[in-house]
Amino acid sequence: MILAKVVGECVATRKHASHEGRKLLLVQPLDLNGQEHDQPLLALDAVDAGEGDTVVVVQEGFSAMTAVERPNAPIDAAVVGVLDHLTLNG
Amino acid sequence: MILAKVVGECVATRKHASHEGRKLLLVQPLDLNGQEHDQPLLALDAVDAGEGDTVVVVQEGFSAMTAVERPNAPIDAAVVGVLDHLTLNG
Amino acid sequence: MILAKVVGECVATRKHASHEGRKLLLVQPLDLNGQEHDQPLLALDAVDAGEGDTVVVVQEGFSAMTAVERPNAPIDAAVVGVLDHLTLNG
Amino acid sequence: MILAKVVGECVATRKHASHEGRKLLLVQPLDLNGQEHDQPLLALDAVDAGEGDTVVVVQEGFSAMTAVERPNAPIDAAVVGVLDHLTLNG
Amino acid sequence: MILAKVVGECVATRKHASHEGRKLLLVQPLDLNGQEHDQPLLALDAVDAGEGDTVVVVQEGFSAMTAVERPNAPIDAAVVGVLDHLTLNG
Repeated sequence: MILAKVVGECVATRKHASHEGRKLLLVQPLDLNGQEHDQPLLALDAVDAGEGDTVVVVQEGFSAMTAVERPNAPIDAAVVGVLDHLTLNG
Repeated sequence: MILAKVVGECVATRKHASHEGRKLLLVQPLDLNGQEHDQPLLALDAVDAGEGDTVVVVQEGFSAMTAVERPNAPIDAAVVGVLDHLTLNG
Repeated sequence: MILAKVVGECVATRKHASHEGRKLLLVQPLDLNGQEHDQPLLALDAVDAGEGDTVVVVQEGFSAMTAVERPNAPIDAAVVGVLDHLTLNG
Repeated sequence: MILAKVVGECVATRKHASHEGRKLLLVQPLDLNGQEHDQPLLALDAVDAGEGDTVVVVQEGFSAMTAVERPNAPIDAAVVGVLDHLTLNG
Repeated sequence: MILAKVVGECVATRKHASHEGRKLLLVQPLDLNGQEHDQPLLALDAVDAGEGDTVVVVQEGFSAMTAVERPNAPIDAAVVGVLDHLTLNG
């Protein structure tokens, strides 16, 4: 899993039926200092995350399908947690 | 999933039988500003996308096979949505 | 698998039920010289690792679920070993 | 899948039995301009590709095993097509 | 699969039971010129490879588990061949 920030939401009318009824969030990976790095990815929302939230994103097919309860769908990433806080080493 | 732009189509006569009858699209990943980044990849088309479209690409085997309805085929990426619009924070 | 250092722990109250009761560790990949490189990732703990430990991290869905004994959960990485020592070539 | 060029062939006498009888090709990923980029990878050949061919490479375990018809083998990449031509946008 | 050089061995007393009895090798990816590149990874040994060998590494869960004959274990990479020689294009 990675830490990421929800930076937007994606709307697609022409899409696979299994994506209906779930928000497709645009998330930006974060580094240890909370800075954005790397490139954004799209993840279906499993925990009602919203824009600005720091979230836990799972990046594996079976995991993502399980998280959004659509076991035979083309989904490879999902938001599975919303961060409360992070404890870093002294 | 990632956001990408369809930049071309690939024609291969000598290929695995499971790829017959589906467009093999060349797609270029996009960043938050809509700029191309990273390297292109090939994805089978599940939503009748065309060149120039901004699309949602799934990058996982089972997902891709499911999207194009060929469950036992060597396919690791598929175009599963065409973007209408993207809402970005603030 | 990769070598990584445990650098923190992540607390999320709103999360997938399958993540309950396991530490979600923030780990930083290490290179051959023990220097941190690349970006951190989140892994569920299967061997009671703690902050500062050098650990072995598996990065694959089925593997991670098996390690933490939650076979149908959205988990794509787990800490599966704590390093004692590393023997490098002369 | 990615576009790549076949740049060599790998010979290993001590190897997993499932790799017997298939060419293990060294392939180099290509960018949109046909330039080599990134690092080479090894893929089993499913379409009788040869050195110098521009090929379609699938990079996922089940897909690769299916392509070379060895379903329970340690194979994570296979050459599944030989490119005839590529149509690029305007 | 990738080409890599075995550069060390990793010893972990606290580890997942499925890793017992197999060498956990530290391997460094190689480029076309035999130069080391990218970051090292850990792979279980399936072909009795030793330090200094140039090897074929599979990087996928099911493949790796199959190679070391431990089908329900948290293993995402294995050494599946030892290179004899590589034929490169003229």
